[in-house]
Amino acid sequence: MLEDFRRIVVTVEYDGTDFCGWQIQPNGISVQQRLEEAVKSLTGETVNAAASGRTDAGVHAIAQTVHFDTHSKIPVANFVPGLNRYLPGGISVKSAREADGSFHARFSARSKTYIYKVYMSGTPSPLHNRTHYVFPYDLFIKPMRTAALQLVGTHDFKSFCSSGSSVSETVRTIYSLDIEQNGSELLFTVTGNGFLYNMVRIIVALLLDVGQGRVHEREVTALLDACDRTKISGCAPACGLYLKEVKY
Amino acid sequence: MLEDFRRIVVTVEYDGTDFCGWQIQPNGISVQQRLEEAVKSLTGETVNAAASGRTDAGVHAIAQTVHFDTHSKIPVANFVPGLNRYLPGGISVKSAREADGSFHARFSARSKTYIYKVYMSGTPSPLHNRTHYVFPYDLFIKPMRTAALQLVGTHDFKSFCSSGSSVSETVRTIYSLDIEQNGSELLFTVTGNGFLYNMVRIIVALLLDVGQGRVHEREVTALLDACDRTKISGCAPACGLYLKEVKY
Repeated sequence: MLEDFRRIVVTVEYDGTDFCGWQIQPNGISVQQRLEEAVKSLTGETVNAAASGRTDAGVHAIAQTVHFDTHSKIPVANFVPGLNRYLPGGISVKSAREADGSFHARFSARSKTYIYKVYMSGTPSPLHNRTHYVFPYDLFIKPMRTAALQLVGTHDFKSFCSSGSSVSETVRTIYSLDIEQNGSELLFTVTGNGFLYNMVRIIVALLLDVGQGRVHEREVTALLDACDRTKISGCAPACGLYLKEVKY
Repeated sequence: MLEDFRRIVVTVEYDGTDFCGWQIQPNGISVQQRLEEAVKSLTGETVNAAASGRTDAGVHAIAQTVHFDTHSKIPVANFVPGLNRYLPGGISVKSAREADGSFHARFSARSKTYIYKVYMSGTPSPLHNRTHYVFPYDLFIKPMRTAALQLVGTHDFKSFCSSGSSVSETVRTIYSLDIEQNGSELLFTVTGNGFLYNMVRIIVALLLDVGQGRVHEREVTALLDACDRTKISGCAPACGLYLKEVKY
């Protein structure tokens, strides 16, 4: 009766600060490990939890999508309180639904939205340390928006992919990339059909360079065309990044 | 040359999560202790740092006002980076100025503003755990606002003072008490000439009872008149409370 499983899809919120990322690692506690342990505690089954994509150490999720298969008869709605009973404080299941076996959290994803939070402050800000990239310099927002517009669309983002990635195909489409300012807070919102390793954090680092006048807003197209990661310095820290939504 | 001191006034931001409160305690690390240690490291002097008021364990500050006296010749602006060099990540000095000896962080204060953050969510919310009171029930905001209006003004707030307080005079004036809703977030902002022990947290607990229909909005005046703490249940948790501003 191996066929007789149900595919459960859950959305998961986590504070990435204390985890080594989504994926199980030999050294460190991952979100995946804690979630699979909670499923084991709830159903007695050992499952493989598949996420829409890995998030790196320290990266947060407002709504990561994860699926796993189970033979248990637990009503689907009960997976929310049931798993939360066994999860640590840093992880929470927000919703659960059933899908057919053709659904895959990673391969069925059509778009993802990330947000990146920056807090501009010349002094350290304990109340934003875990949740934002506390950035010590003032920024000019208008050239950042001009630069961001050049990244929207379908491009080869090889210049925006950290080494260590195994993907060979580096063309991606960014549907939108918005920058919103509320007082000292800058909020980057980017939606695309997929993102390369560290791509969002490298984009933010580049836009922060533009905002400081270290890179001219008109240079962005040339940086894209170069297809060379070494042309762009930096990668904004993980603590400001949130996986906000995955659409299917 | 005992007279030859300068009175330094600093504003301090802290994440209260990992501290036993503002005031030095025999068991636990306080904000006051860490700040006095930083002054000692910077100036070599042992000082007594006086705050506008104590904050309890777990309560945060966006801008706590603190003064101390020093004989050091360090330019006043240098106290900001100088103290931050020695402070732990949870505490930051945001500004520094000099005042004359008649200024006292506590006794010269004319008004204080606190904010209290609630996040309404039927499931745990790791991304709001440290910063908000994650509240599992829906709330009716309109009766909460009606109730809040009855607390504005000069009243005997004895019903809103936790036991363990040594004050005998329990009349205080609340200048404003506003409730703002942004999606799932509720923000309470209260300004007054002073607050009793746990007073803001007891007010919030009462308003949350009103929002759930557990207490009628018209009962608030009677609860004030009773001058009896046992008439009001609860005290909202420390993690949602922030000292926002002290005016002199």
